[in-house]
Amino acid sequence: MALQTFSTEDWTVHEGRFWVNFFNTLSGARTPVLIGTEDAQGTSNLGLFNSLVHLGATPPLLGFILRPTTVPRHTYNNLKASGSYTINHVSKSILDQAHQTSAKYEESESEFKATGLDEEWIEGSSAPFVKQSPIKLGMQFREEHLVLNGTRLIVGEVTSVMLDEATIKDDGSIDLVANQAVSVSGLYRYHDLKFLEQKDYARPTSDSRS
Amino acid sequence: MALQTFSTEDWTVHEGRFWVNFFNTLSGARTPVLIGTEDAQGTSNLGLFNSLVHLGATPPLLGFILRPTTVPRHTYNNLKASGSYTINHVSKSILDQAHQTSAKYEESESEFKATGLDEEWIEGSSAPFVKQSPIKLGMQFREEHLVLNGTRLIVGEVTSVMLDEATIKDDGSIDLVANQAVSVSGLYRYHDLKFLEQKDYARPTSDSRS
Repeated sequence: MALQTFSTEDWTVHEGRFWVNFFNTLSGARTPVLIGTEDAQGTSNLGLFNSLVHLGATPPLLGFILRPTTVPRHTYNNLKASGSYTINHVSKSILDQAHQTSAKYEESESEFKATGLDEEWIEGSSAPFVKQSPIKLGMQFREEHLVLNGTRLIVGEVTSVMLDEATIKDDGSIDLVANQAVSVSGLYRYHDLKFLEQKDYARPTSDSRS
Repeated sequence: MALQTFSTEDWTVHEGRFWVNFFNTLSGARTPVLIGTEDAQGTSNLGLFNSLVHLGATPPLLGFILRPTTVPRHTYNNLKASGSYTINHVSKSILDQAHQTSAKYEESESEFKATGLDEEWIEGSSAPFVKQSPIKLGMQFREEHLVLNGTRLIVGEVTSVMLDEATIKDDGSIDLVANQAVSVSGLYRYHDLKFLEQKDYARPTSDSRS
């Protein structure tokens, strides 16, 4: 298969959204999540993110990427003010509503109400969970890192996890397929996940030592 | 469906690798990539990473997470010294070899030779690409951010992309399924991607304005 090469000269010539979509999909596909927060006026907010990354298990830390705050970012303002947010996995059954939360709603308008997703509150959390989500995380904000282009890495600690215990494997791994997980590349292309295989911890083979 | 709740008291009691696997899979599934570098002695290195994130399109920036440098991290040392690295998508046909690169090889041993993947060199790059990979990116290191638990966000700029042009959609999106993309959750659970649907840019509906 002959591959074509693209380089800086190609994408400095802008062609509408072409290169934006290209680079948004270049990093591969990942599980989309809804991040829930509440502002000081009691208005709840839900934002769709596709940049969740594992940072460590002890303590459990997760990161996600926030776009530049040159336009109002309700999620950012709320989680900085309250210190709390929730992360809710998007499953196939709530995909339409989850995607719809990415529309630009007014600050006074809750994406929950606008899309028909239900708020769920648990003791000790000051941010709303998504009732219909199969895997829900309570998070405490820990730190942020400003990247050279104005995006931010937001780092938080997991304080609680709600999920169906039956979908946890003996080794502790969560079965995403059993949780109806989807995967998104860029902002618009959604995929189904099909389990392929569980690999073992890799060790150098005797071959490679010869 | 009744969900169970887990919280800090549950995971501070360690049970082998249980909670490590739990938190490694909690962030969902994503496309694994091989990062290629070369050290000053001319030994090539390949490392398997599952934390690639899109940071921006203008200029094109990608990030990935490096674990704490308390043990030698060849990828980190090499890319800091040379400024160059490559990112190579893992497709189904090279999954076994890609996973095998995660074995702990000696610094003097190239994961290319050890696993049977072939080096590919292009003009202007001082890091090796993976010949068998369907989507290959030439990268320049830009900056790093040290996270509170010792992990690092490595930020790089895309300087070249090699892929089959026929897999780029009219809007610029890359068709990952046509590139035989796989998806990994945690370190061991691999999935196939099946295209589900392409959504549109979401707008507030008249319903939600009532």
